Amino acid sequence: MLNFYPGPSKLHANIDLHLQQAITSGILSMNHRSMDFMQLYQQVQENFEQFYDLPKDYKVYFTSAATECWTILAQSFPNRSFLHLYNGSFGKKWMEVSKQLEVEHTSVVFDIHGELPVTEINPDTAAEIVCTTLVETSNGTFLSKDIQAAVRETFSDALIAVDATSALAGLSVTWEHADIWFASVQKCFGLPSGLGILILSPTAQHTVEFRSKDIHYNSLKRIVENGASFQTTHTPNILGIYLLAQRLKEIDVTEFFNRNERMNYLYNHFSSHPSLQPLIIEKSVQSATVLTLKGDEEYIKQVKKSLKAQDIIIGSGYGVWKENTIRLANFPAHTDEDFKKLLLVI
Amino acid sequence: MLNFYPGPSKLHANIDLHLQQAITSGILSMNHRSMDFMQLYQQVQENFEQFYDLPKDYKVYFTSAATECWTILAQSFPNRSFLHLYNGSFGKKWMEVSKQLEVEHTSVVFDIHGELPVTEINPDTAAEIVCTTLVETSNGTFLSKDIQAAVRETFSDALIAVDATSALAGLSVTWEHADIWFASVQKCFGLPSGLGILILSPTAQHTVEFRSKDIHYNSLKRIVENGASFQTTHTPNILGIYLLAQRLKEIDVTEFFNRNERMNYLYNHFSSHPSLQPLIIEKSVQSATVLTLKGDEEYIKQVKKSLKAQDIIIGSGYGVWKENTIRLANFPAHTDEDFKKLLLVI
Repeated sequence: MLNFYPGPSKLHANIDLHLQQAITSGILSMNHRSMDFMQLYQQVQENFEQFYDLPKDYKVYFTSAATECWTILAQSFPNRSFLHLYNGSFGKKWMEVSKQLEVEHTSVVFDIHGELPVTEINPDTAAEIVCTTLVETSNGTFLSKDIQAAVRETFSDALIAVDATSALAGLSVTWEHADIWFASVQKCFGLPSGLGILILSPTAQHTVEFRSKDIHYNSLKRIVENGASFQTTHTPNILGIYLLAQRLKEIDVTEFFNRNERMNYLYNHFSSHPSLQPLIIEKSVQSATVLTLKGDEEYIKQVKKSLKAQDIIIGSGYGVWKENTIRLANFPAHTDEDFKKLLLVI
Repeated sequence: MLNFYPGPSKLHANIDLHLQQAITSGILSMNHRSMDFMQLYQQVQENFEQFYDLPKDYKVYFTSAATECWTILAQSFPNRSFLHLYNGSFGKKWMEVSKQLEVEHTSVVFDIHGELPVTEINPDTAAEIVCTTLVETSNGTFLSKDIQAAVRETFSDALIAVDATSALAGLSVTWEHADIWFASVQKCFGLPSGLGILILSPTAQHTVEFRSKDIHYNSLKRIVENGASFQTTHTPNILGIYLLAQRLKEIDVTEFFNRNERMNYLYNHFSSHPSLQPLIIEKSVQSATVLTLKGDEEYIKQVKKSLKAQDIIIGSGYGVWKENTIRLANFPAHTDEDFKKLLLVI
């Protein structure tokens, strides 16, 4: 079976080995208040620094999923104004969480075929926390580094929050562009699902410590306090954390570059395809990690059928593009050989 | 290394095999909206019915941990009165979650050396949700089936909720005694941490559907709605669910009986020990799964040191008993041989 679903997706190549090591290491029966667990947690922090250029004063925490992070933010900052900038279903879902939890919020919804129009946002918009989606998994667009920098600059007093699902471990990031980063591990990390990563800048940590609400077991305040001694607020997915620690060692800038090239190739390939076209017209906003292809509904049905017959899994369209698009993950776990097989069928 | 910590603890014997099977099965790269995942979820439901006598109309759901379930309950029933019955730290922590989330709540704190005095509770106490802890992991007491039945009878109109951590998969339960059961898998299931199980009676499902608050992604309403088609509210720990499905097949009533006998043996053994005594004086409230032993502080320090030198891990005391007790898990993963080794040292 070959899996291009945009997360959970194909597992990373060394996962067998790392699972086996996890068992023999004994870490899986260690309790989460033990020195062994704390050392493992610390290793994740250090591996983020060493292999993914995380500044030392940015701190790593664990949640159960990126979805939980949306809730954690709204519950920890109930009296702040949230500005949601989005162009797809996942950004919208995040906004809906803020809305349902009754925090003050404003939305700027932008077109999928162009950059986030930072300069056009009314500078008087209440925006103490600016919520962005780095790669929108529902349509495959992303925010370029220039746009991320512009968001950072425009809202210099705000906390910038980034849903980095389908991005972390899949592309190079400039950590200083934001204060709050989070992602799940079943996308570009290529790990089994069931673990969320949350990373906070020094500014975010400070704000959490002195000006956040703390009534939930998973409040940011408790997460940060526990994290200071490499502990968690609950019994975490220790196996997931072990696998993450190993996986971080394989983060590779050359791989980022090569995979970006592969997305270029795929984008160009499908631009001249007779029946499937990239959904995103403006190539500059096409992410390196998720490609959405649009076609006639009947053709899409047929493609899915052919792929299934070949034991190849792809993502269906999402939201308004459910029936007339398919989505392909271009994650680190996927090889050029995988794509050769795929392109023989579509 | 030999691990008697009361969860995360020694892993169940076949975990290597099941992890290997999980990888080769392909389920780990399946997305959680796929048919494969739904079939896996259904298998857990059916295995609970077949191997653990769960009535067919009781439904199984997944959370990230038992700790999360405390929050889910308070958030889903913010306008109901909670009655917390407890005699230890975990029951108290649960009460504190209800308190912090500002639900109406009353506590009845009872002595560790006797049964929960059900008949002495003022029958006029507001109690729409009665919160009990089946095995209190901090001191090792448990609620007998007679007491559980008495709670059920006394509060016949209430929803009875049971924190069944250190109980599920470790002892026989009468599901009809309660409406809301939850537990984490790192205790008696002997699985890697990072998954919570929640089970609701038909009455609880009905109440959730028609009379619960639904503003959180993990509200009971959304959990039940998704669960109706074997789906979850978030990307769950699919590996954990796979391992659970396998582990349930090994639930064994004879094993329950034999392990209860072993606890009898341990209790009697330590009752005549020169330096370590069971903390719980009244044997009838001593659980089959966690044994707390009390001793002189200096002696406890020395015991811990000797055990560590032998590569044997035990639990420290908890809360007020932190310095002068140790805790031993007597979980299904532990063998008689394991205990023989332990008893050579203490």
